[in-house]
Amino acid sequence: MAQEEAADQPDADSALTYRLERPVYDEAFIRSHLLHRKDNASTLRQRLARHFHCSSARAKAALFSFLPILTWLPSYPVRQYLFSDVVSGLSTGVVQLPQGLAYAMLAAVPPVYGLYSSFYPVLLYTFLGTSRHISVGVFAVISIMIGGVAVREAPDSLFLVAANGSNASVAVDVEARDVKRVQVAVVLTTLVGLIQLLLGLLRFGFVAIYLTEPLVRGFTTAAAVHVAVSQLKYLLGVKTQRFSGPLAVIYSTKAVLGDITNTNVATLTVGLVCLVFLYGIKDLNERFKKRLPIPIPGEIIVVIVSTGVSYGMSLAGTYEVDVVGTIPRGLRPPTVPLFSLLPSLVADAFAIAIVGFSMAISLAKIFALKYGYNVDGNQELIAIGLCNFISSFFQTFTISCSMSRSLVQESTGGKTQIAGMLSSLVVLLVVVAIGFAFQSLPQTALAAIIMVNLLGMFKQFRDVPALWRTSKIELAIWLVAFVASVLLGLDYGLLVAVAFAILTVIYRTQSPRSAILGHVPGTGLYCDVAEYEEAHEYDGIKIFHSSAPIYFANSDMYVNALKEKTGVDPENVQTARKAQKKLGKNNIKQSATLKLCAQHEEQGATHVAAEQRNGQPEEGHASSDMDDEDVVLEPVCPVHAIVLDWTSVCFIDSVGAKAIKQVIKEYSAVGVRVAVAGCSRVLLSELDALQFFTGVVTPEMVFPTIHDALLSCQHLNSLRPDRTTQ
Amino acid sequence: MAQEEAADQPDADSALTYRLERPVYDEAFIRSHLLHRKDNASTLRQRLARHFHCSSARAKAALFSFLPILTWLPSYPVRQYLFSDVVSGLSTGVVQLPQGLAYAMLAAVPPVYGLYSSFYPVLLYTFLGTSRHISVGVFAVISIMIGGVAVREAPDSLFLVAANGSNASVAVDVEARDVKRVQVAVVLTTLVGLIQLLLGLLRFGFVAIYLTEPLVRGFTTAAAVHVAVSQLKYLLGVKTQRFSGPLAVIYSTKAVLGDITNTNVATLTVGLVCLVFLYGIKDLNERFKKRLPIPIPGEIIVVIVSTGVSYGMSLAGTYEVDVVGTIPRGLRPPTVPLFSLLPSLVADAFAIAIVGFSMAISLAKIFALKYGYNVDGNQELIAIGLCNFISSFFQTFTISCSMSRSLVQESTGGKTQIAGMLSSLVVLLVVVAIGFAFQSLPQTALAAIIMVNLLGMFKQFRDVPALWRTSKIELAIWLVAFVASVLLGLDYGLLVAVAFAILTVIYRTQSPRSAILGHVPGTGLYCDVAEYEEAHEYDGIKIFHSSAPIYFANSDMYVNALKEKTGVDPENVQTARKAQKKLGKNNIKQSATLKLCAQHEEQGATHVAAEQRNGQPEEGHASSDMDDEDVVLEPVCPVHAIVLDWTSVCFIDSVGAKAIKQVIKEYSAVGVRVAVAGCSRVLLSELDALQFFTGVVTPEMVFPTIHDALLSCQHLNSLRPDRTTQ
Repeated sequence: MAQEEAADQPDADSALTYRLERPVYDEAFIRSHLLHRKDNASTLRQRLARHFHCSSARAKAALFSFLPILTWLPSYPVRQYLFSDVVSGLSTGVVQLPQGLAYAMLAAVPPVYGLYSSFYPVLLYTFLGTSRHISVGVFAVISIMIGGVAVREAPDSLFLVAANGSNASVAVDVEARDVKRVQVAVVLTTLVGLIQLLLGLLRFGFVAIYLTEPLVRGFTTAAAVHVAVSQLKYLLGVKTQRFSGPLAVIYSTKAVLGDITNTNVATLTVGLVCLVFLYGIKDLNERFKKRLPIPIPGEIIVVIVSTGVSYGMSLAGTYEVDVVGTIPRGLRPPTVPLFSLLPSLVADAFAIAIVGFSMAISLAKIFALKYGYNVDGNQELIAIGLCNFISSFFQTFTISCSMSRSLVQESTGGKTQIAGMLSSLVVLLVVVAIGFAFQSLPQTALAAIIMVNLLGMFKQFRDVPALWRTSKIELAIWLVAFVASVLLGLDYGLLVAVAFAILTVIYRTQSPRSAILGHVPGTGLYCDVAEYEEAHEYDGIKIFHSSAPIYFANSDMYVNALKEKTGVDPENVQTARKAQKKLGKNNIKQSATLKLCAQHEEQGATHVAAEQRNGQPEEGHASSDMDDEDVVLEPVCPVHAIVLDWTSVCFIDSVGAKAIKQVIKEYSAVGVRVAVAGCSRVLLSELDALQFFTGVVTPEMVFPTIHDALLSCQHLNSLRPDRTTQ
Repeated sequence: MAQEEAADQPDADSALTYRLERPVYDEAFIRSHLLHRKDNASTLRQRLARHFHCSSARAKAALFSFLPILTWLPSYPVRQYLFSDVVSGLSTGVVQLPQGLAYAMLAAVPPVYGLYSSFYPVLLYTFLGTSRHISVGVFAVISIMIGGVAVREAPDSLFLVAANGSNASVAVDVEARDVKRVQVAVVLTTLVGLIQLLLGLLRFGFVAIYLTEPLVRGFTTAAAVHVAVSQLKYLLGVKTQRFSGPLAVIYSTKAVLGDITNTNVATLTVGLVCLVFLYGIKDLNERFKKRLPIPIPGEIIVVIVSTGVSYGMSLAGTYEVDVVGTIPRGLRPPTVPLFSLLPSLVADAFAIAIVGFSMAISLAKIFALKYGYNVDGNQELIAIGLCNFISSFFQTFTISCSMSRSLVQESTGGKTQIAGMLSSLVVLLVVVAIGFAFQSLPQTALAAIIMVNLLGMFKQFRDVPALWRTSKIELAIWLVAFVASVLLGLDYGLLVAVAFAILTVIYRTQSPRSAILGHVPGTGLYCDVAEYEEAHEYDGIKIFHSSAPIYFANSDMYVNALKEKTGVDPENVQTARKAQKKLGKNNIKQSATLKLCAQHEEQGATHVAAEQRNGQPEEGHASSDMDDEDVVLEPVCPVHAIVLDWTSVCFIDSVGAKAIKQVIKEYSAVGVRVAVAGCSRVLLSELDALQFFTGVVTPEMVFPTIHDALLSCQHLNSLRPDRTTQ
């Protein structure tokens, strides 16, 4: 009937037939006759050859990997690339400048350090990086994480000692406090750089894999919340202290709202104007992407204009609008970070290192895919690590790469790392030449810039409905990551999220979907009888499928599911047998059978027939077990064979193996044959190692496919003499 | 040729042939023609039916589950069972008595509380328990855990305040200290009971599954070490303080060794004599198991004799041998535990609750298996929980069940819980009648009893070589559990061990074995070409097998392994194509091909042939991709199709699905067809939910078996016009 259907099949395969005729194989035969392991010699040679091959490749890679610039700069096509690189570099730099100033506020350090961080690392990356399109530099999420640590290590409270008149004292404190916070941020950056470098050298790039996409998106959304909350005070111009650690979000919101009466109207106005303007520009850039040669640099405009206005109207003086304040001219000589602070920062450094790296690599991969080139995860890790480590001696805070900026760099036609370098030179220019000009730039303008840059991250809330439709588990990961990171803070949040993500995997492997399979006639295919009409069972044979590894955490469930779904519980059969001995046979026959097949009936197998057919065979089975002859004429159970479908079992541990072995023993004790079908060769060698094929379990029970197992079971059931083999 | 081999097959299956002839199916066809989901109505009815079925059963179970005694006592066959139950009950009680006294020392409470703990809970279990053979009561591992907590909460140091002359002061302190320690132990027991009860009511019996066997054995071995170390001081009669928490073992060993000069020779002698005697008895019991009606109760003999000797020679007075001391006569009125102590004990309570339960249930299961009856995990949890909870009001410490005692109870012919009840009555008798008699029992004798009982646990060191042979991963679990529990203490040790055990699962699913499969001619079986001689590949088709779920933690590795093993990296092909455009064709042809097939050659596929055959087809492929005609005549890659074998992939998450989709896109862009083979129906529905079958990925790419996929790939490759479908 499958054949006929095949006829009216629209597909190209209709001509094609799957023809197969061979003896039924079992593992014993496969091992003795069919398959022969290759002698190690050859495989060893292969392995050596492959290893040699690899190592030569690795050698070449190692040569260039440390300074990728050597690979691309010599062949840099000046005529084709240079112009667009310059354009893109300048426009990126123009974005990098205000972001540098703004994100410094997130990192709880004076704005100028944001400029340093937008120069040194970016320049270094040009030489070390393998991604041509990402714009490394300050990044909101990382900055807020650093800020959190800085605030924790140097809270305002520590610097209120010299307090006499609140305003004066605060002014005084800020100095000392910021010095301390800078020290913290810098040494933290050194540590982060070291960690990233080490991970890279140890080829541990893969640690980032535990940050699965839903986790990262939930986490960054939470980060956006933190950022937004932390900027409220600047937007409103209220002077509340900054909190860190668990529930920081709630505390600071409460603080700001509590202090909302002191809102500085001038500050708020400036801030809102900037906000609206920037949002408008962003919208324009979106809408006219095609027609604009380069996106309108709204941020720099805001910076310049607001600086001008604030200077002209002396907002700082007249309206007490907080401004950036003194920006030291030029660069600082390198200094050694204050390593005494290290011990308390290790945990944070790990979190920041991994988050920073995974942001960079994920972005780099996107562009690499788009333009068809390779980024080497470990080299990226080394590059970013070195950028952070070396730069930290020049008083920068940790960098990663920013989505928004990278998009600018790419959309304005950036071709190579040259663009990145130029953007850093733009920043350098400002630092050495006209940095002081920004002294009267209102902080609220920077807050506005930050806020607008968050829009992208907040859009990620759309994931929730999407994930709800596709995968509940991943929705759970997203939500856990988000909630934990908002409430516990980004560091603990990340930890919780990763732990949860790992547990979901356990959960998935631990709670398998199990089913009774039936044969789709004429196809050799087997599928769930509960789900598909065509699948039908053969009398007296149950095929049990479970799609998960069998190991300590689920072996009991596996066995229980097996007994429940097949409806055959050896203990019941046993007791039924025992009962038969004692009491009269006729009445027990019904009762036992009914009892045993209660579940059974539902599954629509025809037991009346089954009993008739298997009445005789049962006898033979039973002879292999302790009961005496007068019992064995009663078919206490209509099922004579159970096939365990292990096609989708990817591993089995000793606990699992023991459990299976036990259940096979129990079944064979009550004369139910168990066959195992569809083990992969890998699984089989694992089982050999676990000494699975000893005692009652023999390779003869193992079949390459369900169909083999089924045929052999039917066959053995029909013959008599063979019965002894079982 | 498989046929011929079949002929000389020794196996019973030789007669049997596997015959299958059907069209080649792909998922599209299967969905449209072959399989039809059953209408929900029926399945819903089924589900309802099954649910109803279950719930009725559950109702009946619930009726009796709370007091299982109702199920078995009415049908208690007095004539058959009573005698053996009495014998076994008495002999068990005779063991329970000294163990009660001894384990109280482990729990850091006066001996009499050990007697209480050997009476109340044991009696209660008779009514609540479902296991007929386990002997609940004091258990070394649990006792030492309680002792650890008691010592931590009430350390000696706290009670040295009233110190003036060391001897006097110590005597004084002990009073107050022990009162406090009893309070701690009791309230801890209440909490443990509550937790177990709750877990049982919430049907959380499964939490025990995370304590996999190697973990438990490593853990208990570590516990044995703790116990042994804690008893050294009593054996030597030195007066060192007891430590708890991390490194306690090392501290106490150091303390004892440091104080070894003060060894009390009399104490040591008594102790060693008891030790040797007990060991001898144990050995005898082992050797003459068959001939002895009941094992020789060495422990009670030791207790009685040593008490007599100590009393007669007044060891306590003359030789300063530490003795048990005052044993209050009779029972205590119930009192409410000091709940104020709770908060600091929650974590410990969880650890103890789970360990205690898992010990009991694992033992119960062993006996249930042996005698063919069922134990209900959750009811056991409730039973033990209630035993602990209720008894704790009568000042008992936590109980579980002891291996050694259970074996006595079973080997002396115990049939039902009646035996357990009688053993508890023996203890009761002693408590109310002749408890005071044991006042001059030397502690060193008890230490000897404990030590000898540890032998069984120390034997578990034999696991190490055994596991080394069977499974390295489980050896790792064993060792981690042991080392962590010895060094960090049992509570943290358990935590670390469980975390590690869970991570091993992640590791297993994350680092799959991947391989290139080849067809074993005439069998429809596919296996690793690197491992088996018979497996051989078809020109231009690579079959990639990987035995693990594809999810966020390994999707990258999967893709990399795929590109590496097949030797086809789309990017290289792409670049080769691009290169062809630019440079002359003849030279590039070699270079590109060589470059792409470097890996390839090793895998022994015949590429020369492949190139000839696929030269033409490639053309067609390429037309589906951006290059222009002048390129497509060059076969840049000899592989025209890749089959992903997903038979042992048990789940795929969205990250994995995206990665696969991406790689399929990349391959089809360079004209390599990708087919997916052997997905389970469950996996397919997951993929549907993840919107996997959109864009470039179609159900036509999915095949029920590798063979289907292979045939269709060869077919499509041979035909021309179809090419557009790809």
